[in-house]
Amino acid sequence: MQPTPCRSEILTIGNEIITGLVADTNSGVITRRLETLGISVKRHVSVGDDADEIIDALKQALERVDCVILTGGLGPTHDDITKQVLCRFFNSKLVTDAKVRRRIDLIFQSRGKETPEAAYTQAEVPEKATILHNSKGTAPGLLFEKNGKRVYSLPGVPHEAEHLLETYIVPHLEKPGTLKTEHRILKTTGMPESILWQEIGPVAPFEEHVKVASLPSLLGVRIRFTATGKDLKETSAKLDAAEKLLRRKIDHHIFAVDDETLEGNLGEWLKKNKKTLAIAESCTGGLIGHRLTNISGSSDYFLEGAVTYSNEAKQNRLGVDPALIETHGAVSEPVAKAMAEGIRQKSGSDFGLAVTGIAGPTGGSPEKPVGLTFIAVTGAQGTRCEQFRFHQDRIRNKERAAQAALNLLRLYLLNES
Amino acid sequence: MQPTPCRSEILTIGNEIITGLVADTNSGVITRRLETLGISVKRHVSVGDDADEIIDALKQALERVDCVILTGGLGPTHDDITKQVLCRFFNSKLVTDAKVRRRIDLIFQSRGKETPEAAYTQAEVPEKATILHNSKGTAPGLLFEKNGKRVYSLPGVPHEAEHLLETYIVPHLEKPGTLKTEHRILKTTGMPESILWQEIGPVAPFEEHVKVASLPSLLGVRIRFTATGKDLKETSAKLDAAEKLLRRKIDHHIFAVDDETLEGNLGEWLKKNKKTLAIAESCTGGLIGHRLTNISGSSDYFLEGAVTYSNEAKQNRLGVDPALIETHGAVSEPVAKAMAEGIRQKSGSDFGLAVTGIAGPTGGSPEKPVGLTFIAVTGAQGTRCEQFRFHQDRIRNKERAAQAALNLLRLYLLNES
Repeated sequence: MQPTPCRSEILTIGNEIITGLVADTNSGVITRRLETLGISVKRHVSVGDDADEIIDALKQALERVDCVILTGGLGPTHDDITKQVLCRFFNSKLVTDAKVRRRIDLIFQSRGKETPEAAYTQAEVPEKATILHNSKGTAPGLLFEKNGKRVYSLPGVPHEAEHLLETYIVPHLEKPGTLKTEHRILKTTGMPESILWQEIGPVAPFEEHVKVASLPSLLGVRIRFTATGKDLKETSAKLDAAEKLLRRKIDHHIFAVDDETLEGNLGEWLKKNKKTLAIAESCTGGLIGHRLTNISGSSDYFLEGAVTYSNEAKQNRLGVDPALIETHGAVSEPVAKAMAEGIRQKSGSDFGLAVTGIAGPTGGSPEKPVGLTFIAVTGAQGTRCEQFRFHQDRIRNKERAAQAALNLLRLYLLNES
Repeated sequence: MQPTPCRSEILTIGNEIITGLVADTNSGVITRRLETLGISVKRHVSVGDDADEIIDALKQALERVDCVILTGGLGPTHDDITKQVLCRFFNSKLVTDAKVRRRIDLIFQSRGKETPEAAYTQAEVPEKATILHNSKGTAPGLLFEKNGKRVYSLPGVPHEAEHLLETYIVPHLEKPGTLKTEHRILKTTGMPESILWQEIGPVAPFEEHVKVASLPSLLGVRIRFTATGKDLKETSAKLDAAEKLLRRKIDHHIFAVDDETLEGNLGEWLKKNKKTLAIAESCTGGLIGHRLTNISGSSDYFLEGAVTYSNEAKQNRLGVDPALIETHGAVSEPVAKAMAEGIRQKSGSDFGLAVTGIAGPTGGSPEKPVGLTFIAVTGAQGTRCEQFRFHQDRIRNKERAAQAALNLLRLYLLNES
């Protein structure tokens, strides 16, 4: 018989979360991790730093589920009240924990600093709680158990919350034999959702193996498969079957799987094939270089970027003929090609990639509207250029142009492989 | 006449939200906007695309508050079930709305496309709902009223949700005479929270006017003031008094207020003073250029950027003496200064800004650990260079280095003013 899977909810505490000043990334991370253990997380709740509201939300959550995970409000400042509220809820009181106090001293010592008196409030913990020692920060996590139900309280700092999740919560909640759930995300770009699904066809063959979700976003459509099975071997086999079906239809649109990125996979290819890249950016302003250099080891293949915002920079840095700009305008196919060829030649790289466009909101005209963008890629196979028409605001046009540029390079390299 | 609701909750619907694939930005935006009307938003709830869970959460929310705002799940794909669920909850049925149908046709016509049959499902709306016509997209919003309570349903796409919020919800809910709440955020960077508060001193004088929250993040500490009053004139006066007190203590650390950004305020200064800027980036890889060019009109003052990742690029593009790199290493004060001076000279700009550092995780050594970064700024006043030691992962080191570079430029320009 399968053990009953635990049901869990996440309760996020903090005015900065509820007013949207800080994005809550913890809830999603915890949810995905618990799902791999077969634990369902059906609901997230966020409340401000308000004792009555926290107690009300916690009480209601415990009526629905076996395990509630709280994040936030464990810091040392006056608006952090989670510990006090938990004392009230569980009828406990704060006591100083000597081990936590020593850890706090150690953390400050390792930074070469004296422990400030205020930091010791972090060593005061509810007497009835089990302490979850936190080697990544000064605030320990807490566990309360009552009537067979569990309440975990974690600091809001994401890497501290994740550390305590892995160290304490996962081992506590993992039950052998529970049905496991696993996701896989196939990322596509360059095709609108409706046309992509025309190419994929009916969803029924996929649903023999997995649940399917289609997640459109500014930078492409992600297809998410969800498989359930007795262990990760079974869920992986189902995900593999669904992925194989999908790749038979739209393999060339898929640029990455799960945590992989477009820039990361491009980097892998360049490194493996010992090729180098240089880029010339106008409207994207450095965003393509930023994405490429987010990848550790990118210095192996990324030689340089030129952010040539002015016409003078396009001429002086890339050798673009002023007559080309005069005749066709800076946002044109001939200039995009000349930029890509110019940076390749100046840097001596194997491939050159260039973008020129009108990010907006100003600078558009009837013939050249805001969003018009030319992207060129060049290499031993010659130069290819494509025209795009984005329609969004400045920042989204930059993001779409950078994505389209990296994708055009990917398609160019596919022919090299 | 219906009484205007004064307590509200937000219910976000979507598996992509609950599993953290997509960040929920709507809830924070709606909360801040409703607070300016004196409407309190005490709780956010997120559930997946699960009919029973949605109904349960909606029923519970209506027990607590007068007005529930739902976002998400109004799209045309098979996992969008909000409309069906609301029909079940309010015992209604779907009917085709001719006006919505015409609007859908108009949207596709404006894109030069035929309306796909699937898009018409967006014109099917619950008979009992008031339609909130959406000029920004194909999914209309919905309003249900029952027993003096209101349920709004908005599409999840942020700019569509905001549009319907302003067009319908704000005018519906605005009530003269209600106490208003207003926030103001003063943004600082370059000082750790504990030292910043030593400079600010006790919080009591501020609390005579406003509530105070201190929000540390990777890129600096934000001080948030919250004022309550009978109208925005009163709240503004309280916020002004608190801001004046704060500026008396730490004015030079404050780089922006509310939605202002560091790069936007730098741009304002450069534009006003008719000065130009060029940059040379190594470890930040283009991020500084990306931030500067996020500002509309930046082409007026931003001439160009050089992403000189390799030593060759530093020499060829910026004229950095190879002997300097040989003697001091690429990550050193002399090279940072030479980069800033090189890009200023090559581009003919008034100011030059340069960054060189070890983003990590590889490339560090005992003498030059990961995170070591030199930032130089140059102009008519001469060249200034500062050394920083960041300790984070690659992407966070890049973000901190870009922020520190823009802040160093800000401090340099303060002396020019």
